[in-house]
Order: sequence, then C-alpha cells, then structure tokens
Amino acid sequence: MNTLDKDTVLCISLSGRPSNIGTRFHNYLYGELGLNYVYKAFTTTDLPAAVGGIRALGIRGAGISMPFKEQVIDHVDVMHSSASVIESVNTIVNEDGVLHAYNTDYQAVANLLRENALPHSLSVAVAGSGGMAKAVVAAVRDFGFTDVTVVARNAETGGALAKQYGFSWQSELGHARPGLLINATPIGMAGGAEEDALAFELDAIEAAEAVFDVVAMPPTTPLIRAAAERHKTVITGAEVIALQAAEQFVLYTGVRPSPEEIRRASEYSRS
Amino acid sequence: MNTLDKDTVLCISLSGRPSNIGTRFHNYLYGELGLNYVYKAFTTTDLPAAVGGIRALGIRGAGISMPFKEQVIDHVDVMHSSASVIESVNTIVNEDGVLHAYNTDYQAVANLLRENALPHSLSVAVAGSGGMAKAVVAAVRDFGFTDVTVVARNAETGGALAKQYGFSWQSELGHARPGLLINATPIGMAGGAEEDALAFELDAIEAAEAVFDVVAMPPTTPLIRAAAERHKTVITGAEVIALQAAEQFVLYTGVRPSPEEIRRASEYSRS
Repeated sequence: MNTLDKDTVLCISLSGRPSNIGTRFHNYLYGELGLNYVYKAFTTTDLPAAVGGIRALGIRGAGISMPFKEQVIDHVDVMHSSASVIESVNTIVNEDGVLHAYNTDYQAVANLLRENALPHSLSVAVAGSGGMAKAVVAAVRDFGFTDVTVVARNAETGGALAKQYGFSWQSELGHARPGLLINATPIGMAGGAEEDALAFELDAIEAAEAVFDVVAMPPTTPLIRAAAERHKTVITGAEVIALQAAEQFVLYTGVRPSPEEIRRASEYSRS
Repeated sequence: MNTLDKDTVLCISLSGRPSNIGTRFHNYLYGELGLNYVYKAFTTTDLPAAVGGIRALGIRGAGISMPFKEQVIDHVDVMHSSASVIESVNTIVNEDGVLHAYNTDYQAVANLLRENALPHSLSVAVAGSGGMAKAVVAAVRDFGFTDVTVVARNAETGGALAKQYGFSWQSELGHARPGLLINATPIGMAGGAEEDALAFELDAIEAAEAVFDVVAMPPTTPLIRAAAERHKTVITGAEVIALQAAEQFVLYTGVRPSPEEIRRASEYSRS
C-alpha cells in the first residue's frame, strides 16, 4: 500500500505516448531520499486544459515530451534561457501558480560534453533537426565546437537550425568524416520504424573519435554498439535521459541526488 | 517506495481545506483490493481550470467538498439525480472526458436511515441549510418522514430548503421536542469555530429517541457523546463519511468493497 497523504506533492509528465521510465526514475528517488512526492505519467488530447490543470491543482512539476515540447510554450508563464534559446520546453515548474519552463535536455547534453572533455577542435556532425537536435546543437555551440554540420533530410528545419548557429547543413553526411558523430534522430529507437538502422554509416563511425547517441531505449543502440566495438568514446541516450531527469528532480524538489543515486534510479527506471 | 506506473489511475479530491481522510480511505482500499489506483487530496483557487484539468489529464474521479459543491455544477457535463435533486455535487466521475456528477452524501444518509429502521412517525428536526443539509432533507423526505422542521439561523436558505420539500422552517428549535434530531451544520467539528458546542440543547437531546450528527471529525462529537450517554440511538458522521466514500469508491473503480473492508478503511482513515 502506498502512503500518500494530503501533503504529498504530485509531479507528472505529459507526452503523446507515456512510458514508465520517468515514473519509475522519480518515484525511486522519492523513496530513496524520503521525500513526500509522487510521480505519474499522463497523456492528453487537450494540452491547454492540461496545463491549466497543472496550475489550478498545484501540481508541482511536469516533464514535457513529444509532441508537446514546442506547443506548450504558449501556455507557460516564464521561459528560462535553457528553453527559450532552443524554443523547446521539456520541464515545467509550478511556483505558486506561476509556470516556469526549462529544457533539461540541453543541460544534460552540455554536462555530458563537459564530463567527457572532448577537444574543441573536433569536427562535429549532428543528425536531426527536431526538438532534441535543437538542444544538442545549442549545447554543442555553447561547449565551444566551431566546425559543426547539421545533417538532416528536411532542408527547411535542418537549414534553419544550422543557420541559427552559423553552422552548415547537409542532407546526407556523404564522404565527410567528422571527429564527433551525434545522433539526435529516433533512428535506433526500440519499437521505432528504424529500430535496426544506424544514423551514421560504419565508415564514418570507424573514422570518428567519439559517438554520442541521444536514443535512450535500448540503452545500447545499434549505433552505440558499433562505436563501442570499435573502441570509440561513447556517450549514450541512457546517460542523457538520466541526467535530464536528475535536473528535473532538482528543479521539482530542491534536492540534488548523488551520481550513485542517479545511476541506481536510472537502472531501476529501465528494469 | 510506492509502485506507481504509467497505467496507475489517479483519483483526487477538491476542497477548500483538504484533510487526510479521503486520501487514506481510498488508498487503503486500493491496496487491500489490489487495484492500480492512487488517490490524493487537492485544493484550488481556480475551480473551472481544476475541473478542466481533471478532464484533460484523464483523472478518473474527484470528490468535491466545501466550498465547491454548488459552484462545480456549471463545469460538469452530466448531472445525475442524486446531485440534481439537491443541486449539490460531491463526486465527479470522468468517463472518457465526459464528467458525470453525483452526490453520495445523499445516498449515504438515505442508507443509514434505512439501516437504523427508524419509525416514519417520528418528528424530525434538521439543523442547517447548506449543501449537507440539502442532502439530509432530501433523504429524510425520501425515507418517508412527514413531520420535518428545518432549523436554521439563515431565514433565506433555511426557508427555501423547507419550502422545497413542503416542510416548516424555524430559526431556533425553541420548545419543540422532535423524536429525531439531525445536525447538518459544522457545529462540533474539530478545529471549527463551534468545536465544543452542541447543535441541540440538552433538554431536546434528552427528549429525543435518536440523534444523527453528520460531523465526522471527531468521530464522537459533543452531540454524539451527549446522546450516547443518554442511551439514544445514534448515527455518526463517521458512518456517513465512510458510506459516502464507499459509494465514491464503487463509482471510480466498479468494485464494491465488503462492509468489513469499508469498516477497516474507515478506521484506518481516521487513525
């Protein structure tokens, strides 16, 4: 039996297709840290009313996932820079009825680039031009990379994203051989249309120094497996999702879990 | 640690001053009966947006308490007879975005009158003219009592309530000595302004056959204590709140707990 009471703080997520990962991650840490919080995933067909409900019910926080990350901007009260620079919200924090918007994907990617101490001189290719690609390209720019190419089939969104940061755009990687390959598309995602595909060709993986995949399920994507087999530095989507969820956790609770607690919560969330 | 997942069904309450009773009652029974539900009390300063959030987030059910029982009528979709006859809602059930409104206070009071098999010939005084008094007077009429007086300081609401059912109204009980005394005011409620007061004078209690108090906290109010000491038949607010919560439970889950399970949940909810 759960032990909720009237003072238990509720945090939620809103996404088109709720998964168990966030619910398990946050509830695990609430239990470990003895916080009177509870977390549950929701979906909605009426985003404005759902966000109005977050405000009116005093729901403390909400993780925002596809397809709501851009649409939700019109319904929050304060856009913090992590969300405004990439025009994409993945976190709402309710401060006494005022909804603050953040993007912890950006923070997680930026932190992982720093932790892995990759040389600024590396050339970089970022595959994708959606909400996650926006977070990645902004983090890549802010980290200090200057030779960056956005690789996206969609000329409009890909071209616009590259142009915003003064980077170049290509529809395909072609014969380029960047030092850092970053996948910010759903290619390789479990249950997706391109579950078994690689976002980059094996030749490009072979030539790279480091490979970064934002796809979190499975934790070892085909791209990460191919890179690890070739002894490349790898950064996984499981690391992104755990770090971004940890940043959400800090925003909701004011408590920062230890790296070891984050690791255990992340493992539990995918078990 | 709680074991919520993305499929866990959320039910809530909305009231001006949330208590732990509903949260503990429902969560206890979810645990006992192995239902993947969770319940939590909320308050709000924006009732329309809160009800919109119930609809948009797919929150399954909501208990509605003071001061929202009448105001919420404008925001639901279907008024069932238990709520419409007394123009007071204490339960919302969300059926795929359609909000159905009920009043389980009425049902609980009606059931308790039947269980106690009081003679129809008793004269009855009902103290109060608010939402709960409306439920009580309707149940008293439907049970078959005909000699009924509404006792309320507020001439407008008291008079209107009496008139609606063809009963009489008095501002004070005076020298009347009814066979059944029913308190439907907050007098005697823990933490209230008249916590230590009696809704009826000792002389009237002495002369009555039965005393019914709708105040649930404390379970033994000053009125119930005075009546029990005089060996009167007593019906308590704790019985009302448990029965009305059980009816809500059935509406939310489709599962009817046994009387023994309701009794245990009720005890747990007040422990």
